[in-house]
Amino acid sequence: MALPVSPLAPASYPELPEVRGVRFATAEAGIKYRNRTDVLLTAMDEGTTVAGVLTTSKCPSAAVDWCRQHLAAGTARGLLVNSGNANAFTGSKGVASVALSAQFAADALGVKPEEIQLASTGVIGEPLDANKFAEVTGEMAGRLAPGPWLDAARAIMTTDTFPKVATATVAFDGEDVVISGIAKGSGMIAPDMATMLSFVFTDAPIAAPVLQALLTPAIGKSFNAVTVDSDTSTSDTCLVFATGKANVAPIESVDDPRAATFAAALGDVLHELALLIVRDGEGATKLVTVEVEGAESDHSAFRIAQSIANSPLVKTAIAGEDANWGRVVMAVGKAGEPADRDRLRISFGDIQVATAGERDPSYDEQAVSSYMKNDEITISVGIGLGNGSATVYTCDLTHGYISINGDYRS
Amino acid sequence: MALPVSPLAPASYPELPEVRGVRFATAEAGIKYRNRTDVLLTAMDEGTTVAGVLTTSKCPSAAVDWCRQHLAAGTARGLLVNSGNANAFTGSKGVASVALSAQFAADALGVKPEEIQLASTGVIGEPLDANKFAEVTGEMAGRLAPGPWLDAARAIMTTDTFPKVATATVAFDGEDVVISGIAKGSGMIAPDMATMLSFVFTDAPIAAPVLQALLTPAIGKSFNAVTVDSDTSTSDTCLVFATGKANVAPIESVDDPRAATFAAALGDVLHELALLIVRDGEGATKLVTVEVEGAESDHSAFRIAQSIANSPLVKTAIAGEDANWGRVVMAVGKAGEPADRDRLRISFGDIQVATAGERDPSYDEQAVSSYMKNDEITISVGIGLGNGSATVYTCDLTHGYISINGDYRS
Repeated sequence: MALPVSPLAPASYPELPEVRGVRFATAEAGIKYRNRTDVLLTAMDEGTTVAGVLTTSKCPSAAVDWCRQHLAAGTARGLLVNSGNANAFTGSKGVASVALSAQFAADALGVKPEEIQLASTGVIGEPLDANKFAEVTGEMAGRLAPGPWLDAARAIMTTDTFPKVATATVAFDGEDVVISGIAKGSGMIAPDMATMLSFVFTDAPIAAPVLQALLTPAIGKSFNAVTVDSDTSTSDTCLVFATGKANVAPIESVDDPRAATFAAALGDVLHELALLIVRDGEGATKLVTVEVEGAESDHSAFRIAQSIANSPLVKTAIAGEDANWGRVVMAVGKAGEPADRDRLRISFGDIQVATAGERDPSYDEQAVSSYMKNDEITISVGIGLGNGSATVYTCDLTHGYISINGDYRS
Repeated sequence: MALPVSPLAPASYPELPEVRGVRFATAEAGIKYRNRTDVLLTAMDEGTTVAGVLTTSKCPSAAVDWCRQHLAAGTARGLLVNSGNANAFTGSKGVASVALSAQFAADALGVKPEEIQLASTGVIGEPLDANKFAEVTGEMAGRLAPGPWLDAARAIMTTDTFPKVATATVAFDGEDVVISGIAKGSGMIAPDMATMLSFVFTDAPIAAPVLQALLTPAIGKSFNAVTVDSDTSTSDTCLVFATGKANVAPIESVDDPRAATFAAALGDVLHELALLIVRDGEGATKLVTVEVEGAESDHSAFRIAQSIANSPLVKTAIAGEDANWGRVVMAVGKAGEPADRDRLRISFGDIQVATAGERDPSYDEQAVSSYMKNDEITISVGIGLGNGSATVYTCDLTHGYISINGDYRS
């Protein structure tokens, strides 16, 4: 029943170094899948700070509610994640289930339940039996190890066709600080959501408010800048844990010059994970970068880029290797943002196809058709009104998406 | 190259009575299609008033710009519509083309160019050669007739698989007043846009400001309440012409009690045309009604209903005959409108599947699966916060949509 691996999967995975202060184990709890791991238990040493960004959905999962409540403390000692069941729209059963899940993880790790962060991904509306965790967490706690990270990434997959990892290393005071992350995206079989989960771990010593201040803007350029199908999950979760075990002085202010260096490296890791999610978008055969510049503001540029990246007519055209820039015009026009038809400029790759409100005089169908055969397509749009710019990443819309999501749920 | 007729096409078409003061003809101008009509020329008697609603796109077609400019006068004597080319994003060529098109139609009908309304639908970005009209308008003017309406509806089709007509008759002062309309929706071959055009004709005598005042709210419950794929066209146009040839006293105020009667009949015609467009949505196999009640306002209910109706995950589930209410929860959650997960109620048809934030205790998968096999599906959602309600109509998202829109443009 496994899907074929996405044609956009990376050719190889990076070696992920150990993150001091982080150990984990995976197990088969049999929540939904058979013959694969579906639980990840991660232990973080004392002193670990945490920051997070959670779904804006008005119908969040029980696990998201739990995280939101316990992120405020800024510290964490454990992370329990399962695939196969999202524990979303499960009412009071969901509330009881997350409390019990945190208790089992806390008991196994010898910490308090409120020090446990939780995430669940899979079917919506099915109660999640927390007792499944009781059967495995104690045993998992006995074999925690600092790797291999690909195992952690595999345990949280749903209809993902490949595991998603990224890493960066920065030197502070002659000491290497590691930032490693895992993520999961969209998938199949009993597909219910394109649910995004990402967990990043670093041994840098960073105060929780600083970590949060660095994380939030980075999300805007990474996970919030990708779209597979415009459907926002009930369970989207990105958590960053900082163990502080690297032998460097603590970063306690965003004004510490190292904060900017760390933020850049964290941004790179998040950006790479976000692109891996698009590369594994359901049914994807092309990675599409939508660049908008010249809008009235960055926010306006972002909304226009989203309108293009979410347009089913643009996405099906790309699947058909059709440089259908008329549909790009349509998507700019419907975005609801300031735009002047007669100033628009549109390029596919380096080939300008439209300028000043009409087809480019040098338009060469042959050249642009040939460009559209690439695996990676860049659409760039100049609005001609100001200095606002934004980039959004998406994939094409193919028969694969319909097949994956039109199959019967049970 | 013709698409198979939509399985949701009506079994038969109503007889459309003559609308006094309206005559028309269709012709093959060879704009893009071969062996079919692609031009409609309509003549309206002196004294005809006009009202219209046009696309909100920031990149409207040249014809839309023309209509917007000339609707202000409130009168019209002719309508020229072509299929095969949208005359959108054609720059100064487009401006020249609409002026010339209006001139040819005006010359043929013996009226002024500013008394001609224009609409074009088809490929975006291709210059439209107005001389094509010069070759046919004179000849068409010689054979104007009050019917048959199906011919008019056929001439404006692009990838529509059936012509769309609707009619209503109301009696004022013992005299029948006719309201007849045609529309076109989405289509194929070199598909560029799901472009919506609709033209309604009545012999009622109605002052232009009254006609506009009655039309605008009716659009909200008809054309603006349907969505095939969330992509707003550069060319959406709905025009209503009132010839005043019915032998009744003029309606010169919205406070005239007959205005409400007329508005209701006009609303019925527009609603029926809008539903015909959904029934011919690209690749559609099911007509879906999304009813939302209990929202904080009607506007909020409408935005939630749109979020559900535009969700590709909801639409693919319906194509797969899967009562995947978890995806409905997701779509409510992402709408950005006030909602409380723990008050949500969701039904498919008469079957309540979720209540108070979780699966209905009496949930019966068998019953709901059987319901999902119907051609027409109603999803109703109770938000539980207020009295706002709205209904939006859509179709499912199938392999047909991908095939129609992923084919190469040229």
